[in-house]
Amino acid sequence: MTEYLPSYVQGEWWTPSSPERSTEVRDASTGEVVTRVSTEGLDLAGALEHARTIGQRSLGALTFHQRAVLLKQFALALTERKDELYALSSRTGATKNDSWVDIDGGIGVLFSYSGKGRRELPNSRVHVDGPVEPLSKDGSFLGRHVYTTLPGVAVQINAFNFPVWGSLEKFAPAFLAGMPTLVKPATPTGYLAEAMVRILVESGLLPDGSLQLVSGSVPDLFENLRLGDIVGFTGSASTAESLKAHPAVQTGGVRFTAETDSINASVLGTDAVAGTPEFDAYVRQLVTEMTTKAGQKCTAIRRAIVPTGSADAVIAAVQARIADKTVLGDPRTEGVTMGPLASIAQRDEVLRQVGRLQAAGAQIVVGTTDAPEVRLADGSTGLAPDGAFVSPLLLRFDDAQTEAAHSIEAFGPVSSLLTYDTTADAAALVARGGGSLVTSIATHDPAQAVELATRIAPFNGRMLLLDRDDARSSTGHGSPLPNLVHGGPGRAGGGEELGGIRAVLHHMQRTAVQGSPEMLTALTGVWHAGAAARSDGRHPFRKSLAELRIGDQIVSASREVTLADIETFAHFTGDTFYAHMDEAAAAANPFFPGRVAHGYLLVSWAAGLFVDPEPGPVLANYGLENLRFITPVSPGDTIRVELTAKQITPRETDEYGEVRWDAVIRNQSDELVATYDVLTLVNKQQTSEGVAA
Amino acid sequence: MTEYLPSYVQGEWWTPSSPERSTEVRDASTGEVVTRVSTEGLDLAGALEHARTIGQRSLGALTFHQRAVLLKQFALALTERKDELYALSSRTGATKNDSWVDIDGGIGVLFSYSGKGRRELPNSRVHVDGPVEPLSKDGSFLGRHVYTTLPGVAVQINAFNFPVWGSLEKFAPAFLAGMPTLVKPATPTGYLAEAMVRILVESGLLPDGSLQLVSGSVPDLFENLRLGDIVGFTGSASTAESLKAHPAVQTGGVRFTAETDSINASVLGTDAVAGTPEFDAYVRQLVTEMTTKAGQKCTAIRRAIVPTGSADAVIAAVQARIADKTVLGDPRTEGVTMGPLASIAQRDEVLRQVGRLQAAGAQIVVGTTDAPEVRLADGSTGLAPDGAFVSPLLLRFDDAQTEAAHSIEAFGPVSSLLTYDTTADAAALVARGGGSLVTSIATHDPAQAVELATRIAPFNGRMLLLDRDDARSSTGHGSPLPNLVHGGPGRAGGGEELGGIRAVLHHMQRTAVQGSPEMLTALTGVWHAGAAARSDGRHPFRKSLAELRIGDQIVSASREVTLADIETFAHFTGDTFYAHMDEAAAAANPFFPGRVAHGYLLVSWAAGLFVDPEPGPVLANYGLENLRFITPVSPGDTIRVELTAKQITPRETDEYGEVRWDAVIRNQSDELVATYDVLTLVNKQQTSEGVAA
Repeated sequence: MTEYLPSYVQGEWWTPSSPERSTEVRDASTGEVVTRVSTEGLDLAGALEHARTIGQRSLGALTFHQRAVLLKQFALALTERKDELYALSSRTGATKNDSWVDIDGGIGVLFSYSGKGRRELPNSRVHVDGPVEPLSKDGSFLGRHVYTTLPGVAVQINAFNFPVWGSLEKFAPAFLAGMPTLVKPATPTGYLAEAMVRILVESGLLPDGSLQLVSGSVPDLFENLRLGDIVGFTGSASTAESLKAHPAVQTGGVRFTAETDSINASVLGTDAVAGTPEFDAYVRQLVTEMTTKAGQKCTAIRRAIVPTGSADAVIAAVQARIADKTVLGDPRTEGVTMGPLASIAQRDEVLRQVGRLQAAGAQIVVGTTDAPEVRLADGSTGLAPDGAFVSPLLLRFDDAQTEAAHSIEAFGPVSSLLTYDTTADAAALVARGGGSLVTSIATHDPAQAVELATRIAPFNGRMLLLDRDDARSSTGHGSPLPNLVHGGPGRAGGGEELGGIRAVLHHMQRTAVQGSPEMLTALTGVWHAGAAARSDGRHPFRKSLAELRIGDQIVSASREVTLADIETFAHFTGDTFYAHMDEAAAAANPFFPGRVAHGYLLVSWAAGLFVDPEPGPVLANYGLENLRFITPVSPGDTIRVELTAKQITPRETDEYGEVRWDAVIRNQSDELVATYDVLTLVNKQQTSEGVAA
Repeated sequence: MTEYLPSYVQGEWWTPSSPERSTEVRDASTGEVVTRVSTEGLDLAGALEHARTIGQRSLGALTFHQRAVLLKQFALALTERKDELYALSSRTGATKNDSWVDIDGGIGVLFSYSGKGRRELPNSRVHVDGPVEPLSKDGSFLGRHVYTTLPGVAVQINAFNFPVWGSLEKFAPAFLAGMPTLVKPATPTGYLAEAMVRILVESGLLPDGSLQLVSGSVPDLFENLRLGDIVGFTGSASTAESLKAHPAVQTGGVRFTAETDSINASVLGTDAVAGTPEFDAYVRQLVTEMTTKAGQKCTAIRRAIVPTGSADAVIAAVQARIADKTVLGDPRTEGVTMGPLASIAQRDEVLRQVGRLQAAGAQIVVGTTDAPEVRLADGSTGLAPDGAFVSPLLLRFDDAQTEAAHSIEAFGPVSSLLTYDTTADAAALVARGGGSLVTSIATHDPAQAVELATRIAPFNGRMLLLDRDDARSSTGHGSPLPNLVHGGPGRAGGGEELGGIRAVLHHMQRTAVQGSPEMLTALTGVWHAGAAARSDGRHPFRKSLAELRIGDQIVSASREVTLADIETFAHFTGDTFYAHMDEAAAAANPFFPGRVAHGYLLVSWAAGLFVDPEPGPVLANYGLENLRFITPVSPGDTIRVELTAKQITPRETDEYGEVRWDAVIRNQSDELVATYDVLTLVNKQQTSEGVAA
């Protein structure tokens, strides 16, 4: 490790030459100096502008799918060198399991966004939100919502507890949105984030300006931010508060999202008494949340809310499980399951908050605040005066209403036990936290789960319903997942991260657009009904993606539907529903004039009318969406279909892509019979078979 | 009009008895005193708590659809008595056309939300967001996002310019979300909002506590707000800034959305030279925006950005059109097309801002700041010393970069003309506004529209693309619509209002929920694959909505698909695509093992397998969604289908409702062949035919 931890700005590694002030960073278990951190002389304004210019340009040249492919390549590059990260991670106090959450968890976020980006976003740069809004009767004026990339830089200020995951969970959605990132890790574990960024830089895969790293403080950051920039902050509620108050956020239009530690809760249902699978799952989860990362998780359980009658049983079970399973020590030592806190300063802070909780009435019922004996690096057991160790602590409040229990956080292996009598009481206690990242509920009674969950949902960003059915497969109270929203109201910061594509959209501006079908087609890359359509004499199924254009259309011949056809279809399919078979009964139905054709007959015939049967670029019809039957078709009516290329999505890593076709079936009076989207897979190029056909 | 304008709080009308201080409100054209306003002695804290308790309870007892039906009834009640509102509206300076925008526009918002609420929300209290997220391989642990109603009060602080529309556009989505409203209109026109609320109260339709009105100032409002409350503010950027800085918002978790006046722009394309339909549409729209509501609109065009070569032509055309079409005067007088500003104070403020623009270099090229001669109440023409009249003013800046042009707003009939040379210049000028509610672009060139729109979208909440195709049907630059987002980034306040259901969701909390299929089914009211399903021996198609339960299921018999079936279907439908007809060509396709059954054959057969043919409660299959073909079906394979009641949506105003069925087709090896949702209409009760069947 270098004497001063480098930053990576404006495409180059930068290290302070001989700073007047720097911060020492120490090994969490041994107290050895790992590195020093300083930003004296760093050109922060230049780095931000580098992102806004070079970074925006290089990311703006890529589509969502191209960015998504890169995310996967980043994940693979990190996987290849993850041993280096694990080695460093243990210096932060992380056990192997803690490191897995941070490192493999972070890599998993990249994989997840890579997949979601390709499945759920178009292969273009503008994302369409919601359906077409018709704004005029004649169809000449439409509304649509689009998301476009914010034109600035995404500044990501991270907490010390997950230096890899915390960086990647913000970077991935920003990158996918097309926003360049400037990441500022927390100093105590910033060397691990630096190593992760170094691997990405050395992979040679990063688009210019798409990722910069500042190792150290950024006191004048907000003076250099402006409309179009976004700050994603993870850390304490008090820091979030002071950052948010800056004029750049208050009046300058800089977006600010915060995810702060909160006083999360876990509620044991009244049915989940000792001996039930839910009781066991509850205790197991509680101990896991106390000991993983030594309890240094924004999502950890700070309040264990249990029925009055179950309190003693929970305490005894927690006591027994910790005694049985938890080995405190240097994470590099065999058998250790729980490491130290990240720093001596953190240890002192946690013990100070425990003291405040005790002063407010908490009794320690499991563990001790004395310096614990731990398993040392040499395998022996003893005190570690330079290690930041705290033993797991379960506190108990006799009065669940005590304000301190709902507002003071000891950011370590510390939870408080509170008791309740009715479900309404339990819900009120959860709400006392003033907004939480997550609350879990252990019950096998759906009625109790629904009552509690409905009451507490507005106070939580996430809820986990734990019972015998999911106890084994549950990912756990404390684990944010890339496909679920992470963040919560009020005390939890009021922001949202992750949640799949939702987090990508936080880096984009939603804009309502009004215009003619032609203009909306041009802007969105999606054909809108009313825009020009072309029938150039060549069947669109004969065109590869390289040749096909939005608006290419086939208008079919007409075909008459006879009563015999309806009967043939009914007997062939077995669908003898009375509306097709019984004139009197059909006519009694409020929607039908008499016997009508099957909806499935109509879409099947439509395919027969529009399909071009010979081998060619169109490989398969893999689905159909938004089918609506509008006007019934009676015997003697004729139908025809218009099929228009609506959206073209070439796949980055396959020889084909998706084409969405707008299908409209009309009758002899031009009335709408049915509308739907046909989904096909189409080759990018004419293959030999296709050309031969 | 009473001497003091009443408030409506805690279910009663309240008027100050003899306040020490009150504000006089005057007729905009004549200066006569209309009423006085004071909140001395009003129990604001009690009103807020009334909303949070009584209001939440009465709205919480209703489903989305029940609330939506009420919105329509409110709209009808207001329509019936709208003459009273028009009569009062003219006292605010509004012409008949201005009043139409405010009053009928506001009623239109209620109708729109009533329709959207029933079409786009479930008939329940929890809204599901996004798809199921599988979280475990065995399907026992799923994720889903739900929206639940914020547990507090929606405080709506409105601007003076649209007392009816401004109140209703915030009230409608809050009401639909289940949040009680406390509305605080602006003092100069609050008597019109009071009249609107009075009609609603007198209709007897309002659920208890769902709407309260405070006429007058609320200095200690924010001290009385807390987590779960939301403030929707419309007004000046500076007021928004000071409100947002309150600790209740900064740290207390109170949601705050602002829609502030912004320096909106309208860009004339380089192709839209004099003589083109786009030029004419541009000028027409610019004059409309200057004169409607005497330019007192947050969305009005403050910057007309035109090609250098077109500037003189635009000025001449604006001059001519104003001379031809605009008649300034008392709006109660025949022939008047533009009224006064809302108050003398507003007039003075506008003239002061025009002075600042002039000091920064603006030349007045149309109009004058002298007191205009206007058409008076008696039909004569003359000066109106007690009326707040300002003539339409077009300013011109020689230097388009002048900061004042992009930051100073004269909130009246005032626009500034700026010139540009390249599209990139025009985009940069738009962005100089620091975030706008709306920008319009007049061009018939899609390439120019796309380039400009893509660059400026992140700086705008709405964009209007104006050309010959939509000029006649366009709703106009300055008109927010209930189905489109209203609000913009930065200077425009950073908030979003309207946009259909989006605004409803702003009044709800999004929470990620993890749990077993059973628990997610119980919480959402939507059946999740893996949850219990019941086959009780009675075909679910024989059950009315009163009898049908989520999870009711039919598992069909199996049916073998033969080559003869495939050929029969191909010849019957005309769909002779090679994958069904030609073994060698099909096998050469990357997705098929050889000839396979048509996807439409499979869904048609599935209907034959699950349908119960006799008349009964199921009335029609009106559509199908999310169909995906997964495993191809070869001759000799057998298929069967499972159909499970997934979501039940009874209609409030019909004798039937929608049932969404989960359909899964599997083959003889239990592989997934296809999945989709079948949409049906089902009677609420057994009808005589149904029972007889």
